[in-house]
Amino acid sequence: MEHPPDAPVVLVVEDEPLIQILVEEALSDGGFKSETVGSGEEAIALLEGDSARYRALLTDINVQGELTGWDVARRARELQSEIPVVYMTGAAAEQWNSQGVPNSLLLNKPFAPAQIVTAVSQLLNRTPLE
Amino acid sequence: MEHPPDAPVVLVVEDEPLIQILVEEALSDGGFKSETVGSGEEAIALLEGDSARYRALLTDINVQGELTGWDVARRARELQSEIPVVYMTGAAAEQWNSQGVPNSLLLNKPFAPAQIVTAVSQLLNRTPLE
Amino acid sequence: MEHPPDAPVVLVVEDEPLIQILVEEALSDGGFKSETVGSGEEAIALLEGDSARYRALLTDINVQGELTGWDVARRARELQSEIPVVYMTGAAAEQWNSQGVPNSLLLNKPFAPAQIVTAVSQLLNRTPLE
Amino acid sequence: MEHPPDAPVVLVVEDEPLIQILVEEALSDGGFKSETVGSGEEAIALLEGDSARYRALLTDINVQGELTGWDVARRARELQSEIPVVYMTGAAAEQWNSQGVPNSLLLNKPFAPAQIVTAVSQLLNRTPLE
Amino acid sequence: MEHPPDAPVVLVVEDEPLIQILVEEALSDGGFKSETVGSGEEAIALLEGDSARYRALLTDINVQGELTGWDVARRARELQSEIPVVYMTGAAAEQWNSQGVPNSLLLNKPFAPAQIVTAVSQLLNRTPLE
Amino acid sequence: MEHPPDAPVVLVVEDEPLIQILVEEALSDGGFKSETVGSGEEAIALLEGDSARYRALLTDINVQGELTGWDVARRARELQSEIPVVYMTGAAAEQWNSQGVPNSLLLNKPFAPAQIVTAVSQLLNRTPLE
Repeated sequence: MEHPPDAPVVLVVEDEPLIQILVEEALSDGGFKSETVGSGEEAIALLEGDSARYRALLTDINVQGELTGWDVARRARELQSEIPVVYMTGAAAEQWNSQGVPNSLLLNKPFAPAQIVTAVSQLLNRTPLE
Repeated sequence: MEHPPDAPVVLVVEDEPLIQILVEEALSDGGFKSETVGSGEEAIALLEGDSARYRALLTDINVQGELTGWDVARRARELQSEIPVVYMTGAAAEQWNSQGVPNSLLLNKPFAPAQIVTAVSQLLNRTPLE
Repeated sequence: MEHPPDAPVVLVVEDEPLIQILVEEALSDGGFKSETVGSGEEAIALLEGDSARYRALLTDINVQGELTGWDVARRARELQSEIPVVYMTGAAAEQWNSQGVPNSLLLNKPFAPAQIVTAVSQLLNRTPLE
Repeated sequence: MEHPPDAPVVLVVEDEPLIQILVEEALSDGGFKSETVGSGEEAIALLEGDSARYRALLTDINVQGELTGWDVARRARELQSEIPVVYMTGAAAEQWNSQGVPNSLLLNKPFAPAQIVTAVSQLLNRTPLE
Repeated sequence: MEHPPDAPVVLVVEDEPLIQILVEEALSDGGFKSETVGSGEEAIALLEGDSARYRALLTDINVQGELTGWDVARRARELQSEIPVVYMTGAAAEQWNSQGVPNSLLLNKPFAPAQIVTAVSQLLNRTPLE
Repeated sequence: MEHPPDAPVVLVVEDEPLIQILVEEALSDGGFKSETVGSGEEAIALLEGDSARYRALLTDINVQGELTGWDVARRARELQSEIPVVYMTGAAAEQWNSQGVPNSLLLNKPFAPAQIVTAVSQLLNRTPLE
C-alpha cells in the first residue's frame, strides 16, 4: 500500500524487538508511519518536544526505564487531550480498569497484526462529537 | 418510591453540604441508598474495609484532604475491578481524559438530579460481557 | 406524573409479588403502563394475541411454568423483531452471554427502581438506524 | 425535587399544549429548567441571542411556522457544536436517517415522560472525549 | 485478495486524482469494489438510477459541481435509509456536527488507507437491530 | 504478514468450499490462524475438547448436520462465556434478533474479506470492563 507523504504517525513504545517488527510492519501495511522507542522516558521526551506530530499512541505496559505505559498515556493525554491510546500487554490486563485512560483500547497478547490496525483506525475514526 | 431492604448502595464523596443533599435526595428518589463522606481518605477507608458493600462510586474531584476524586476512583477499581464510577466537577473536566478511569462518566456542574440517577443506572445496566 | 392515554405499555413477567409491585410502581412513576403475568406461558399468549400492543418486555428468568425468561424473549423477538428486552435476575447472570438475545440488558438483583426505568428508556431511545 | 438556582436549561420547541405540559413537567421532575416556544423561528431567535444559555434542545419536527425541527437542530449545532439534540415525532421517524444531526436521539410518540429525561441525561452524560 | 464476483460496491465521490487512487486501492485491497465519480451531481444520478447497487457511500465534502458531500449523503439516505456513510475532509470537520447524517463517520485528512477500510467495515458490520 | 507462532486461533464453521477459502485467506492476511469445520457437530466437539484453544468463533448459519450456527454459538458461550462470535449469512439475517447471542456481529453475504477481519478484531479489542 502506498504511503502518502503525510500519512498519520503513530508513536510506538515497545522494547521487545520481535514485537517492534510485527507492530511496525502491521502499521506500515495499513498505511501508517510509525516511530518506535523502547522506554517511557524516550516517549515522553518526543511527546513533549512535538505532541502534535503524533496522531496515536501504541504502548506496551512494561518497558525499559522507570515509567510504565500507563504513565506515558497519561502524559500524552495531558499534552494532547484526545490522542487515541492503545495498550498492548501480556500480563497486566486486569490493571486496565484502574490504570488506563478513558476511551482507550487494550490488546491482550498474543494478538494478530490486524488487531493493531483496527484498534488505531477505530479510535481515529471515532465520530468527533466536538 | 419504596426502598427494598437490599437497595444498591452508592458511595458518595462530596464536601459541599448543598450538593451532598441534592445528590442524596436524587439517589433516594431513584431507589438507591447512599453513604456520603467528605474526603478521599474516608472513602478509601470504607472501600478497603468492605469494597463489596458498594455498587457504585460518585465522587467530586476536589474534596477535603490530600486525595482527589481521581485517586479515590483508581483505588476503588483496584479493589473492585468493575465498580461504576461517576465524577462530578465544575472545573476539572478537561483533566478527565488523562486522569479518569475507563468506562467512567463525568457530570459537569451544574447538573440536574436526574443526570445523577441516569449516570449510575446506565453504568450498572451496562450489559455484562463477562 | 400524569399518564397520557396512549402511554407505552411494558409487558412484565414476574411471579414474586413484592418485585411485581416494585416494578409496576417504578414503571408507573416513569409514565409507562404495565401488564404483569406470572408465567412465560401467559406472556407468550399475550404476545401472540397482539404483539404490537407491547413496546417493551421486562422479564424475570425463573418464573412459574415450564418456560424461562430466555424463552419468552426469543418468542417476543420472533413476533416483533426489535422489541426492547430487559432481563431481571438474581442468580442467572452468567447465562446471559449464551441465552440472552442481542441488544438486551440484564439487571442484577437487587436493583433500584430507577434502573428499570432507565433500562427501558435507553432501549426505546436507541437511535433507529433503520 | 429541588431545583438548584443554576439547573441546566433545556430549550423545548413544541406547539401542542398537552405535550408542552407533559414535557415541561417531566423536565421539572428531573431537575431541569425549560423554556418552551411553539415555532422554529422563535427557537432560532433565542439560540442566536444567547446559545450558551441552553444545555440541550428538545424539538418536535412539525411545528408552527416555516421551519421544521430538523432546521432548528442544524442551526443550534452551528451555534453550539456539541449541544445535545432530542427529536420528538409521531410521523417523521423514517426521515431521521437523512435529516437528523449526528449523535442525536429520536423519541417516537407516544413516549413516556421518563424517556425524555433519560434521553437528555444520556446525551449530557456522554463521556467528553475532547 | 481475491474478489468474489459479488463483492460489495462502494460509491466514492472524490475529485482529487491522487486521493481517488489511494481510496480505490484501499477498498480493492479490502475486497470491495468501488465506483468513483468527481461530483455530487454524478453521484446522485447513480444513486437515483439504482440505489440498491451500492452498499456504502464514501464522499469528500468539497467536490466538483454545486453539491457538497453533505448533500449527497442526505439524498443517499432518502433513497436507502440505512446506507453507511463515511465523509473524508481536510477542512470541514467542524461542520460534521451540524451537516452530517446520523450514524456516519468522518475521516480527517490525512488518513491512512486502513482507516477507510475499517470505517466502511465497521458501519457494514454494525449489528442490525431491525 | 508474518504469523507469530502464537497467533490467535479462530474457529470457522463453513461448508461451502469457496467461502472457506475466502475466509481462511482473509484471516491469514490479518495475522490470525484458523481451523475450519463443515458442521456444527464438529465445531462443538472441538470446543468441548479444548475451548480455551479458540479466541473467536466465525460461523455460517446453515451448515452440514443437524445443528445451526445459532446452536454452535450458544454452546461456545456456555464453554467460554466471553468468546467473540461473528455470524455469516445470506438468508437468515432477520433471525439474528431472536437467535443470536449478545455482543455478536452479523455479516450479510456477500461481504468483503476486510469485513471479516474487522469484525473479529473489533470484538477482540472490545475494552475489557472486567
